[in-house]
Amino acid sequence: MSSDLTLTERKQRRARQRIIAAADALFAARGFDAVSVGDIVERAEVGRTTFFRYFGDKQEVVFAREQELLDLVGAEQIEVADGGRRTLADALVALEPVILRLCEQMSADWEGYRRHLQLVEGHPDLAARDAAKMQIVALRLRDLLVAHQWATFPATFAAEIALACYWTARHASTETGGLVDATRAAFRQALELGADPSTRP
Amino acid sequence: MSSDLTLTERKQRRARQRIIAAADALFAARGFDAVSVGDIVERAEVGRTTFFRYFGDKQEVVFAREQELLDLVGAEQIEVADGGRRTLADALVALEPVILRLCEQMSADWEGYRRHLQLVEGHPDLAARDAAKMQIVALRLRDLLVAHQWATFPATFAAEIALACYWTARHASTETGGLVDATRAAFRQALELGADPSTRP
Repeated sequence: MSSDLTLTERKQRRARQRIIAAADALFAARGFDAVSVGDIVERAEVGRTTFFRYFGDKQEVVFAREQELLDLVGAEQIEVADGGRRTLADALVALEPVILRLCEQMSADWEGYRRHLQLVEGHPDLAARDAAKMQIVALRLRDLLVAHQWATFPATFAAEIALACYWTARHASTETGGLVDATRAAFRQALELGADPSTRP
Repeated sequence: MSSDLTLTERKQRRARQRIIAAADALFAARGFDAVSVGDIVERAEVGRTTFFRYFGDKQEVVFAREQELLDLVGAEQIEVADGGRRTLADALVALEPVILRLCEQMSADWEGYRRHLQLVEGHPDLAARDAAKMQIVALRLRDLLVAHQWATFPATFAAEIALACYWTARHASTETGGLVDATRAAFRQALELGADPSTRP
């Protein structure tokens, strides 16, 4: 809540937001490579020290929103009965609402989200950083399951499949709200995989 | 076949192998960051020009073997009847032997493979490059399915789930042959996901 923040904290938060907005505008106008940290701090009207207090490098500004969401994953709760079953399918069912909430938050500003994806997918270094961040999300989801008594193998696997649902949906959705719906559809398909006996091992 | 190669090609191949072997030894002894391209070319007894003919940067040497395998994915064939069904489960069944062959080749030199994983997983930049390479593999697997008449959504999804199988198995296997077996087990589990009606949507 903003009323709980001190004046200094509010100032810091505003400086961080100004850096993100300035970088967004510059990247969109000139492309990632043609923008320097100097350009960003000039437009944001902050010092370099302030920039590096919040971001390790220029790439990190691109993932500022993802980083906030990544921090949220740690605080996510999954609902699961104590002592109940802990299969791979149960793990996927438990992760689905977590992923859908993340999708909703990520794509709430649909135009911003599309712009972000365009920037990331058009630049090999950013795509690499993005893929690495996804693996960090997967580790956090795995830890969430392990904390709820799943074994490591199904926990790791469910986290990876959950990300596969998001990743596939991200490439398929082209309109507002599309990401959440497409991710939900992917979970449905994954959870129906063995329903057809002809492909069941 | 090596008999089909010209003398120049054989020399080039040997130079590339010497670079890889020198880098492997140096990374293992000193860690990735403490080794320069200069150190590698000195030990491999090649010039810098030769180094950069084969590798874009120092990181690429770490992924030399992955890159060879990545090139192989494009040449992989999947066996599937023309005009047959093209569900997500069918796609996974079609990809399984491709992934298992890759696992076998990747882990044929088990000690080398373990050393590689240790290096990559202990270094954020290498982990990022690794995750990015996995996404390139996923794109190639998707293209393979699309070339065999799958629609984009199930093709993308199956490719991501297939990689999830490999990724999970890689974290679970600790002995020779373990990677192939663990990956096969992961495919089995994925293809049985909806077999239990209680978690089926």
